[in-house]
Amino acid sequence: MSTPRLERLSINQITVRDWSLAQAAEGLARHGIGGIGVWPERVEELGLQRSVALLRDHDLHVSSVCRAGFFTAQPDPSRVSDANRRAIEITRAVGGDCLYIVCGPLAQDNDLAGARAMALDGLAAMAVEAEVAGVALALEPLHPMMTADRCVVVTLAQALDMVDAVGSPAVGVAVDSYNVWWDPQLPASLERAGARVISYQICDWLVPQPHPVFGRGIPGDGVIDLAALTRQVDSVGYQGPIEVEIFNEDVWSRDADEVISLIRDRFPSVS
Amino acid sequence: MSTPRLERLSINQITVRDWSLAQAAEGLARHGIGGIGVWPERVEELGLQRSVALLRDHDLHVSSVCRAGFFTAQPDPSRVSDANRRAIEITRAVGGDCLYIVCGPLAQDNDLAGARAMALDGLAAMAVEAEVAGVALALEPLHPMMTADRCVVVTLAQALDMVDAVGSPAVGVAVDSYNVWWDPQLPASLERAGARVISYQICDWLVPQPHPVFGRGIPGDGVIDLAALTRQVDSVGYQGPIEVEIFNEDVWSRDADEVISLIRDRFPSVS
Repeated sequence: MSTPRLERLSINQITVRDWSLAQAAEGLARHGIGGIGVWPERVEELGLQRSVALLRDHDLHVSSVCRAGFFTAQPDPSRVSDANRRAIEITRAVGGDCLYIVCGPLAQDNDLAGARAMALDGLAAMAVEAEVAGVALALEPLHPMMTADRCVVVTLAQALDMVDAVGSPAVGVAVDSYNVWWDPQLPASLERAGARVISYQICDWLVPQPHPVFGRGIPGDGVIDLAALTRQVDSVGYQGPIEVEIFNEDVWSRDADEVISLIRDRFPSVS
Repeated sequence: MSTPRLERLSINQITVRDWSLAQAAEGLARHGIGGIGVWPERVEELGLQRSVALLRDHDLHVSSVCRAGFFTAQPDPSRVSDANRRAIEITRAVGGDCLYIVCGPLAQDNDLAGARAMALDGLAAMAVEAEVAGVALALEPLHPMMTADRCVVVTLAQALDMVDAVGSPAVGVAVDSYNVWWDPQLPASLERAGARVISYQICDWLVPQPHPVFGRGIPGDGVIDLAALTRQVDSVGYQGPIEVEIFNEDVWSRDADEVISLIRDRFPSVS
């Protein structure tokens, strides 16, 4: 039973933050893990061509590139920024399943509806270029507690409304356990999403919560019924990688090999 | 313009936490404020009959009693606990507009759906006794970030589903700016709620957020467009008190008279 589950395991490189992309690629391969989520900054650090070669040499499947978007901070979100265009290019080059889109926070004027309209404009413009490049954009709702300072898109239903409004085959949604587990509407939204779920990330919700952003837990350390959530996500047709992404100062201070071993050992019981 | 707005101002006594009920009643009256939200513990501290006399002597309207519920921690939520029965009695005696209901957190078994079912059972049982007593229960969705450790009811839509399921005229919903401002579904949920909105509380969302529970801001110090929210709440038919409720260690450490003056001065522009 554990073998097929492990085949779906991917680890986002932020989970082993202090490792370079080369260290992460080597580390994951050493632990027999075949999937990785990469960050554009880390790809640029090494260089795009060297990154592509590195990932290929370690036979790593790139389950996601994290991340682009941040439309609400842009003067005109209907024009694709250089950073977002480059993120599409990187995703295509590394063969990533998708590029995560985080829409950005409330702006200085505190106009929430306005910021949400900017997010939609930005997504629509970026979808055109992503489609041409053959890159999938995974729109990620963040947790509602991040509305003010990180992302004004905060529920799966809202993300699906945006995907519907954009109407591009290049755009789907990302489901991240930490961001959606609380949502009473989640079963209905997953049903509605169906094949538009193009990425799935997991981590746990710790109690007490050490920090809203940098206090995510290793799967199994918190209160989310991750096995049940995975069943729900799978039941609407998702069959792709299950990517573990952890932002946590305490986890980052631990030995990265031990963290990967722990995630690997726990994976069959939490997915 | 400021006069009619001020007539709606009520202050929840937790905002001046270090004052006793007697000090709070005298303090609010001294500042010309006619409404107060009270806590059962503070009423018991003084004694119910003395509290009733005190509130009457200061001509204070009790906009809410905060709070009861906590069904998810009870062995059998379908039996009304002594504490919840007493809270109904207190609310009736002080003539409170409503009794706030906080349903309680996720239990040890991490069964979120199960905890939500317990919350519904508890609300239904309590509604029967509230109706007999002529007391209104205001079901309060808390912010989703509090799902694990405070309350499994986290959106206005979910609260309305529960109110519909209970089907008692004694049960409505409470709208608290801090808990609902982020919700993309809020306008639709308010429309749906209509006259079932029986209480409205405000405070602000600070950036950065000092603490998820004890980091609420004085109206005007944060990012919520409170004037717009009040218009939305009023537009569906609510015309009752606007109660300022602030949990904030920094606010609590300040001179309570200064805090009340500040809230009073700001009130016309944020409501």
